[in-house]
Amino acid sequence: MGETWATLGVDLHLETGGDASRHGVRKGLTDALRAAVRSGRLTPGTRLPSSRSLAVDLGIARNTVADAYADLVAEGWLTARQGSGTRVAERVVTPPVRPATPRRRGGAPEYDLGPGAPDLTSFPRSEWLKAARRAMAAAPNDALGYPDPRGRIELRTVLAAYLARARGVHADPGRIVVTAGFLHALALLGRVLRARGLPEVAVESYGLNIHWNLLHRAGLRTTPLGFDALGTDVAGLGPDSPKAVLLTPAHQFPMGVPLHPDRRAAAVDWARREGGVILEDDYDGEFRYDRQPVGALQGLDPERVVYLGTASKSLAPGLRLGWMVLPSGLQDEVLDERHAAGAYGSALDQLTLAEFIESGAYDRHVRAARLRYRRRRDQLVAALAARAPEVRATGIAAGLHAVLELPPGTEQSIVQAANWERLAVHGLSGFRHPEAAVRQRDALVVGYGTPAEHAWAGALEALCRVVG
Amino acid sequence: MGETWATLGVDLHLETGGDASRHGVRKGLTDALRAAVRSGRLTPGTRLPSSRSLAVDLGIARNTVADAYADLVAEGWLTARQGSGTRVAERVVTPPVRPATPRRRGGAPEYDLGPGAPDLTSFPRSEWLKAARRAMAAAPNDALGYPDPRGRIELRTVLAAYLARARGVHADPGRIVVTAGFLHALALLGRVLRARGLPEVAVESYGLNIHWNLLHRAGLRTTPLGFDALGTDVAGLGPDSPKAVLLTPAHQFPMGVPLHPDRRAAAVDWARREGGVILEDDYDGEFRYDRQPVGALQGLDPERVVYLGTASKSLAPGLRLGWMVLPSGLQDEVLDERHAAGAYGSALDQLTLAEFIESGAYDRHVRAARLRYRRRRDQLVAALAARAPEVRATGIAAGLHAVLELPPGTEQSIVQAANWERLAVHGLSGFRHPEAAVRQRDALVVGYGTPAEHAWAGALEALCRVVG
Repeated sequence: MGETWATLGVDLHLETGGDASRHGVRKGLTDALRAAVRSGRLTPGTRLPSSRSLAVDLGIARNTVADAYADLVAEGWLTARQGSGTRVAERVVTPPVRPATPRRRGGAPEYDLGPGAPDLTSFPRSEWLKAARRAMAAAPNDALGYPDPRGRIELRTVLAAYLARARGVHADPGRIVVTAGFLHALALLGRVLRARGLPEVAVESYGLNIHWNLLHRAGLRTTPLGFDALGTDVAGLGPDSPKAVLLTPAHQFPMGVPLHPDRRAAAVDWARREGGVILEDDYDGEFRYDRQPVGALQGLDPERVVYLGTASKSLAPGLRLGWMVLPSGLQDEVLDERHAAGAYGSALDQLTLAEFIESGAYDRHVRAARLRYRRRRDQLVAALAARAPEVRATGIAAGLHAVLELPPGTEQSIVQAANWERLAVHGLSGFRHPEAAVRQRDALVVGYGTPAEHAWAGALEALCRVVG
Repeated sequence: MGETWATLGVDLHLETGGDASRHGVRKGLTDALRAAVRSGRLTPGTRLPSSRSLAVDLGIARNTVADAYADLVAEGWLTARQGSGTRVAERVVTPPVRPATPRRRGGAPEYDLGPGAPDLTSFPRSEWLKAARRAMAAAPNDALGYPDPRGRIELRTVLAAYLARARGVHADPGRIVVTAGFLHALALLGRVLRARGLPEVAVESYGLNIHWNLLHRAGLRTTPLGFDALGTDVAGLGPDSPKAVLLTPAHQFPMGVPLHPDRRAAAVDWARREGGVILEDDYDGEFRYDRQPVGALQGLDPERVVYLGTASKSLAPGLRLGWMVLPSGLQDEVLDERHAAGAYGSALDQLTLAEFIESGAYDRHVRAARLRYRRRRDQLVAALAARAPEVRATGIAAGLHAVLELPPGTEQSIVQAANWERLAVHGLSGFRHPEAAVRQRDALVVGYGTPAEHAWAGALEALCRVVG
């Protein structure tokens, strides 16, 4: 099929490459609509015809139109709201109309390369809904009642198998506690450690302010360990060090190196010898590109390591789903702190995630995302090599972000220049613990997973302009 | 239509009362299958034919069969699991086969008349899924990102309008905080009050241990106010009383009386005069049977009253969705405590509830539930009048539970007898604050909303045997 039609008041060329199957027609329609939006032929806010009437106009199945609309809603090109139909999204990303005139400066970012989130437009909306439907049909009535404080057994069972297979975690469903994401789990653990009388927790030289603050709010001090090419220097853990440590062993955040095998072993040895607890933040363990994933540290000693995982990077932060696998000695205390806070999650979401994982949809989604992010990473590295050869990307064997090492003294001015170009990007200095002994390095932390697929090329171009 | 068929290996009589519409056929099929399960003609675990093949056998539309199956799954008669098809549920509730032989005593309850939960089998599963689908299609991509700490603006906007209309709440979306249910909200408020330096909170003579314990865990003492026929005696609030009070003004839990209008006014006057805060637990405000609902106290002074609502009674506790409407002075502190705990809820659930309310499905569901619970209440009152005339049901103008006043000294033995009959029912003494000055009364707190529709008659019969 290849035809031009003018049903939306604009000429759209429907090109299916000779594939007249339902799939081919759907793709052709999706492509044509996307192109029309991208080019400005369909302007923001334009109301599209109902799927029924467009289907009649085009002589194709209504479901095909509905599916194409849904695809484009999921990608962020269209919006669908109850009562106001399907419309072209009010989007920021339009081609620069007059490149010669000065661009509008400042204001809301046009491109976001902040780390910590996946591409939200690639969330598998329809697969998730299908899993929700199956989960709802299968849910026992008691799933709608007051919750199991550990989370639904169906999800804990599926997670135990998944974490063992994908991350080498030694997991028993009875040791898993489902939480509202990593931050919730960390806050609970911080309160448990404080209630045990711990005054402080060792942390890495680089990390997230929000994590340190959560521990501070629980009444704990945070004491940074050293950092070098082998990762976080766990030699700082000893008989006099804090009795708990928060680590990102698979992929140090944000520096990107895995913890050296000797140091993994040394950390576990310390925990055994001194009765210490290791909190393992495995935030992006699913995304490893160049070799076998680094397994979870927890597998080395499940009685000394709390494993912390999340769906925030592999699916979306908005789901607010995370999990921890606890040593036997910590479970009662964690559940007691949770009880005091009264915050339990929706049973339906948990059953949906269980179904999503069990049906294979999770693996498929992660595989597709891994390919997409690896391609972006490769494009980032290639673009920098061509246009900013003095900027080196490191920490790129895994994850959704890279560290771009900058010439000394340039970080602040480059971040400012980026903001001026309406490109949101973060300097490494914001991830350095205030008491860390590591020398100041100038670098950017670039979340290449964050932009929507259609915005990625523009974001990369803006980045190259800023650092080139 | 009225015919008998034997497609499941049993004779089923499909009676549609002459209504050959799709709705009539669906109802006829649902009734026939339900009757076959109830009578034991279809035994637990039996696998039903696929909807496709049963539809062919019966000469009706496949969707009609699928809908009938879905209805019966929702009611708990059938189960549908991925991979194992639709089966007759393994249910506890079967007709007593040999009434002459001694029944099995002790063990898990056969009937649950504990208060606090609605009939979970009446959860509107398919309507909820429809709302989820519409919400997913309309959700902006940022809904999948890190959350607004107050909850999604779409839900807060819909709730503001709903609460104003249905409960007379003075609500602004900016003042609403969506929580993981009432307990989560109460725990946050307890921590805020403690951080303000309050040593104690006034509570009602009767209430829930779990609420008092949450406040204790936040570091607060609880001090009970008096109670009489006009409700909780707010004269105990004065210049020297605690500066905060937790009340159930619309329908005292569990005693069931509304707070007298003079006392509502007096409570608000106290709060204004002394700078006090009233926490209004409006747990079942939607369910009022005999006259106009008692509006929320919050409407009298939104700057002195925190309104607390929940979907746990109107929909299901498993959703873990609640909300509070905060005075302007409390919002920052509540959000700060929430930040320290890191527990935010799923954006998709919030968007689904917003869509569910806005589409009218919530009102329809509440109306249907109200009729169903009122019928149960009437049956409870009638059965007691006939079989246990010395037992008086009180607190029955609203809600999902009743207080059954017992002859003095009999509460404990009746609760034990009920447990022996595998009927879960609670004595009033378990709801009395340990420091309450009210005289001990013997009574049962009977949650008539809790049983599944098919189990209600049996539960009522068991109750009458125990108290009669």
